[in-house]
Amino acid sequence: MCGQCVIDNVRQSMMSRRSLLLGAAATGAAAAALGTPRPALAQTAEAGGVSGRFSGVADLTHTLVPDFPTFSGKPQFEANQVYFRDKDGYNLSILTIDEHTGTHVDAPLHFSTDGQSVDEIPVANLVAPLVIVDIAARAADDADAQVTPDDLKAWISANGEMPDRCCVAMHSGWAEKVGGDGFRNADGDGVMHFPGFHPEAAAMLMEETGAIGIGVDTLSLDHGASADFGTHNSWLPTNRWGVECLAGLGALPASGAMIVLGAPKHKGGSGGPARVFALTKAA
Amino acid sequence: MCGQCVIDNVRQSMMSRRSLLLGAAATGAAAAALGTPRPALAQTAEAGGVSGRFSGVADLTHTLVPDFPTFSGKPQFEANQVYFRDKDGYNLSILTIDEHTGTHVDAPLHFSTDGQSVDEIPVANLVAPLVIVDIAARAADDADAQVTPDDLKAWISANGEMPDRCCVAMHSGWAEKVGGDGFRNADGDGVMHFPGFHPEAAAMLMEETGAIGIGVDTLSLDHGASADFGTHNSWLPTNRWGVECLAGLGALPASGAMIVLGAPKHKGGSGGPARVFALTKAA
Repeated sequence: MCGQCVIDNVRQSMMSRRSLLLGAAATGAAAAALGTPRPALAQTAEAGGVSGRFSGVADLTHTLVPDFPTFSGKPQFEANQVYFRDKDGYNLSILTIDEHTGTHVDAPLHFSTDGQSVDEIPVANLVAPLVIVDIAARAADDADAQVTPDDLKAWISANGEMPDRCCVAMHSGWAEKVGGDGFRNADGDGVMHFPGFHPEAAAMLMEETGAIGIGVDTLSLDHGASADFGTHNSWLPTNRWGVECLAGLGALPASGAMIVLGAPKHKGGSGGPARVFALTKAA
Repeated sequence: MCGQCVIDNVRQSMMSRRSLLLGAAATGAAAAALGTPRPALAQTAEAGGVSGRFSGVADLTHTLVPDFPTFSGKPQFEANQVYFRDKDGYNLSILTIDEHTGTHVDAPLHFSTDGQSVDEIPVANLVAPLVIVDIAARAADDADAQVTPDDLKAWISANGEMPDRCCVAMHSGWAEKVGGDGFRNADGDGVMHFPGFHPEAAAMLMEETGAIGIGVDTLSLDHGASADFGTHNSWLPTNRWGVECLAGLGALPASGAMIVLGAPKHKGGSGGPARVFALTKAA
């Protein structure tokens, strides 16, 4: 299923769900129906997850270029230089960009009607212990691989309980494919094939852990062949965030780093290009 | 002098300087002439300034809105929503933005021909000990107040030597004016009046400290009435960065926090909107 097909499918699904809710205030109720029954995360948090002694910083952000691969398959970023140092005294460009381009945040509002917009995500939720679930070996053989509850259980077996208020990131090895067609990996029918979080894994994180964010090194929280954005539709409406197109996860430990999500802060945004760092702890 | 007048003035100044360099490769030599004789900072740093035990995070970023005040006086940001959750399944906007809008980074390339573009700033330079120089009391009486070498000496007297690879930020109290005309504070002739770094303070930081960045809570590293971008023109070509329109500095200690500069990472950029945090240390 191509990107546009997925969009059409979701639109259709939304309309069906809304028709079931006839008589309710459609937009808000539709969002609630798509979310989980658990209450949304608190709008504010006191201290955040910043704790520990750090000794280094790693960059989890891809360099953004006009032909950076996109979910839609169309270019989504351009820079137009309008002032030039040699004749104007300084360099300056005007940028035009789709919010969901490059290494970028999915704010809760991306898949909800009343979730937090990108400027409303509490700052304490933007710094979080980083859990890395490595499915790269499996994804090398199967581009449709997904993070499953078994992967999360295996991580817990190896590393202990997931830290409260953590971000769980999928390392699939996809970041290395970013310069070529293998990143979108579309088949002859336009269906993309890349890894993502299975909705059952998202459900387990919501039910059994205190995770506040999920991250992927691919174009979508859902795997490329998803027909319904199942993970987006369950995770984001609960005021948890996502981050897509992460780089550099392979160089980090499965546990112990902190992610710093430099989300943009434009009012009412559904997300946007972000600078993402990992602070690494001293031995 | 209005924003456009300053632009014209700098352009004129550049052309005069270039004519003095007749026979040299004009663009590169002009940039060198505008820089300091000291070598540029190393392109890479091993460990960066990440060190210490942190317990909290503060947001130094203003929320970006279409009418956020700008140096040019014209609107520089707009968001155009093109997908809507209730009919399309998700919300998504296209953003158009001048790189130098809102809380944003000035990359070395902003005022140089061969300095680091925003994607080239070493990641280790984006996390730095945060020195806050408070001139708010003076700025309350004099909108043309500038950070001077005496202010830096007073900080050192009170707090000890500035940490290596630090960012020195001016707290002038201007962040509280961001919603009104007082932020640009233009007079009848269009000349803006707000605080900034005096070029002599920038020179002292370059000559006597290891500072890698400067920050202001106003629209420009130079004070608003500057006719020549003196601080921009000396500081940025040495591969040191700047950040403008910071928020929240008044709530932080003069020493002890770490700034995390979530600079955008688009290839060849002269800067751009940034998410800026301060990590605060445990007592």
